[in-house]
Amino acid sequence: MDASRFSATLFSEVEHWHQTCDVLVMGFGGSGACAAIEASDNGAEVVIIDASSAAGGSTALSSAEIYLGGGTRVQKACGYDDSVDAMYDYLMATNGPQADAAKIKKYCDSAVEHFDWLCQQGVPFKDSEYKARAVMALTDDGLLYTGSEKAWPFVEQAKPAPRGHNLHVWGDNGGPLFMKIMSEAIQARNIDVQLETRALRLVVDNDRRSVVGVVVRQDMQEKFIQVRQGVVVCAGGFVMNPSMVQKYAPELMRCNTPIGNPGDTGAGIQMAMAVGASVINMHEGFVSLPFYPPASLTNGILVNCHGQRFINEDAYHGRVGSYLLKQDPGPVYLIVNVDDYADYETRSYLGAPVAATGETVEELVDELDVPRQMLLDTINAYNESVTQGHDPVFHKSQEWLKTLQAPIVALDCTPGHGAYMPYFTLGGLETTVDGEVLNTMGGIIDGLYAAGRSACGVPRRGDGYASGISVGDATFSGRMAGRCAARRIVEKN
Amino acid sequence: MDASRFSATLFSEVEHWHQTCDVLVMGFGGSGACAAIEASDNGAEVVIIDASSAAGGSTALSSAEIYLGGGTRVQKACGYDDSVDAMYDYLMATNGPQADAAKIKKYCDSAVEHFDWLCQQGVPFKDSEYKARAVMALTDDGLLYTGSEKAWPFVEQAKPAPRGHNLHVWGDNGGPLFMKIMSEAIQARNIDVQLETRALRLVVDNDRRSVVGVVVRQDMQEKFIQVRQGVVVCAGGFVMNPSMVQKYAPELMRCNTPIGNPGDTGAGIQMAMAVGASVINMHEGFVSLPFYPPASLTNGILVNCHGQRFINEDAYHGRVGSYLLKQDPGPVYLIVNVDDYADYETRSYLGAPVAATGETVEELVDELDVPRQMLLDTINAYNESVTQGHDPVFHKSQEWLKTLQAPIVALDCTPGHGAYMPYFTLGGLETTVDGEVLNTMGGIIDGLYAAGRSACGVPRRGDGYASGISVGDATFSGRMAGRCAARRIVEKN
Repeated sequence: MDASRFSATLFSEVEHWHQTCDVLVMGFGGSGACAAIEASDNGAEVVIIDASSAAGGSTALSSAEIYLGGGTRVQKACGYDDSVDAMYDYLMATNGPQADAAKIKKYCDSAVEHFDWLCQQGVPFKDSEYKARAVMALTDDGLLYTGSEKAWPFVEQAKPAPRGHNLHVWGDNGGPLFMKIMSEAIQARNIDVQLETRALRLVVDNDRRSVVGVVVRQDMQEKFIQVRQGVVVCAGGFVMNPSMVQKYAPELMRCNTPIGNPGDTGAGIQMAMAVGASVINMHEGFVSLPFYPPASLTNGILVNCHGQRFINEDAYHGRVGSYLLKQDPGPVYLIVNVDDYADYETRSYLGAPVAATGETVEELVDELDVPRQMLLDTINAYNESVTQGHDPVFHKSQEWLKTLQAPIVALDCTPGHGAYMPYFTLGGLETTVDGEVLNTMGGIIDGLYAAGRSACGVPRRGDGYASGISVGDATFSGRMAGRCAARRIVEKN
Repeated sequence: MDASRFSATLFSEVEHWHQTCDVLVMGFGGSGACAAIEASDNGAEVVIIDASSAAGGSTALSSAEIYLGGGTRVQKACGYDDSVDAMYDYLMATNGPQADAAKIKKYCDSAVEHFDWLCQQGVPFKDSEYKARAVMALTDDGLLYTGSEKAWPFVEQAKPAPRGHNLHVWGDNGGPLFMKIMSEAIQARNIDVQLETRALRLVVDNDRRSVVGVVVRQDMQEKFIQVRQGVVVCAGGFVMNPSMVQKYAPELMRCNTPIGNPGDTGAGIQMAMAVGASVINMHEGFVSLPFYPPASLTNGILVNCHGQRFINEDAYHGRVGSYLLKQDPGPVYLIVNVDDYADYETRSYLGAPVAATGETVEELVDELDVPRQMLLDTINAYNESVTQGHDPVFHKSQEWLKTLQAPIVALDCTPGHGAYMPYFTLGGLETTVDGEVLNTMGGIIDGLYAAGRSACGVPRRGDGYASGISVGDATFSGRMAGRCAARRIVEKN
């Protein structure tokens, strides 16, 4: 990658501005669309650009579950009495020492408003609940548990409620529908959409205090777009840039499938860094071991190279994946009764190879590459917990406690052995609650805003992630940033 | 902290240069001293500044063990046949995915030369070995194991050798002696030392491409020092800046004792960031649970809140501390026979309170706040390992396997319960092997160099740390940076 690509351009170096607008939004995914809509609705003349040939970003590739609570229409219709406080407590607990209390508070306080706003744009949610343990609803139901709300330790720290809001569409088609609706909302506002337009550099005024434009590549030439109010970076994270992941979040490289769109190269983050922007939480990422469906695999146990369990297996798949990466290098197995293995081969996303099977538990254990006696002890202790009806060691819910017995199977979940382990980045530009980008000195960079995975927002830890929190945060932070940019009062020279 | 304090000053804003030199070294600790000496020996006119009233930095407060190998004079005299390859393999393995192969290779290739160079400066090492398991030698012996070389898994990955080089002085007095010798070496070269001189900002030329000076506070006024060749930032890490630790490495805040000198505020790192410098590995830190001496406590086992062991207890105390922080929040106990508790109260650094004692194992277990049966199983399994003479689960060396039996005691090592858990930071400025500071675009910032804990050097992981690697890296990287700055060819305008 050309090192100079992301240098900044000085105002004095611009010979000709090809276009001027109030707010330029860099990136037409979920956050960019919401930024553009809010900026427009707040009176700004908006240009939205994207390097690819179509709108969508990573949001269009996702399920577009949206993590919201505090009493949304769907929650109420499904009989849940969620509160802003419960949602806040959950997000604070799951984000641990990295939690940004101000951002989480704003997000929770605004969650019902954001849900209503999405509905106003035309995003449909059905007032029904999908009750199975699942990575996503493949029905058109509007609500499901998408995090570790019912699992230890969070069940003791915040009153659980399902907060994953799933679009009213069958199958895994939420993302395309969401971005179709957003595109229509953009079109209805006559916002200037420029596709196949790649941002190259930010333009700063001559004392480098304010962002005043963007250099783009369009129709095979460089063009200069001036902004009166600001640039909103909604260009995604950096998971598709291996050298950047290696530099900042090398542990993630043990997973095998970066998820996002090809434009998630960190270019937006790097352009902002070139004008002095601060980045935080760069080592963190979402990591998953999507071992359900079938949910029945939750009845099994996960063991590490020491033959020990290491997590309550009823936790969210992303928490399980993050814990897996924290284990000592070596084998990781999911051990489950053949009964519960069920329709694994046709329904699973996991793709983990079978490590061993056993007509007896001992036969299985003998075939696995972990300390034999410790694994037998682990299985015996687990089965004793089942008998007693509670798991004193990892506090797995009674719902998923089932005696392990032959015939029995072990799936090889060792990183690098074939199990699907998707990942994406959770670090990015340091921003205020309103989306203003901070410089490394703690000040605001005038005219520069960021949202979605280009920024470091609400989701900050892989082991605390919940499906829908990234699209939720991206769309909400996009709105905040777009609004803030549109309302910026620029002193005229 | 004043956000604007670390902004950069433009060349054109300087009205009067109070002094000009070739190379200015910011910080008079171990790295700064070595940078100044090498710069001077390479023909540069050097100024070294420090904010405090005396030389020393954090090196003077440390034991000043120096991690070197590949066949030093002391290693050979003590009968060790260490090799550059073995040292390289060890440092690559212990630094895991963050390992900087180029820096590690240069450090290992140069280790004997660096040892000899230190001896030439007058640093004394006795050709004798301290054989006990210890955090530091309190004798005057010259060599000891200071990492996890003999412990799993590294014992299987690199041929072990002791590489901790301890100065020829009794007690924990290596640091003061080391800095006394360095100060004399500085004095012998007539290097201009300016104490009570705090760096405030870097000065950059008007296109912000090169560092051309430093603004300092001295005698209660701002002064401007111009550099012909460059500035070497040797101003330590940021462990004494709680807001910076919270921002970048919040997990470390679970420990209780930041170690370093009060000047380790990250000011040098932040000044460099203000001129576009890149920082990496900012989330990582050294963490320790110094549970030995007495070494006999290694015969015990550490258990987490699940009642499980989580590490081979013969690992280095820093590895143990890092693993402790990775466990689920909750109690952590060190369980050991009263026999092995020995002279804990008089000799230990740990200061962990006694959680419980037992005239029987069961009595002890009943008093602890972990799953009872799991802990009993853990103790039984461990004792079975002792009987069999090997630990198949955590691969603790046979040397430290001893049956746990009453009377027995548990020390409370839970973070926040009083056990001494020191920490410092391992992230910093991204530099080349020669010490040139990189900007966020991957290019070199002309005239800016960094070393020691201001830079991200050889030591990159808390769980792979070895005593002596920070002073070793600091002194060596200081030399590299000082030399590179002195040899820089500056084009005259």
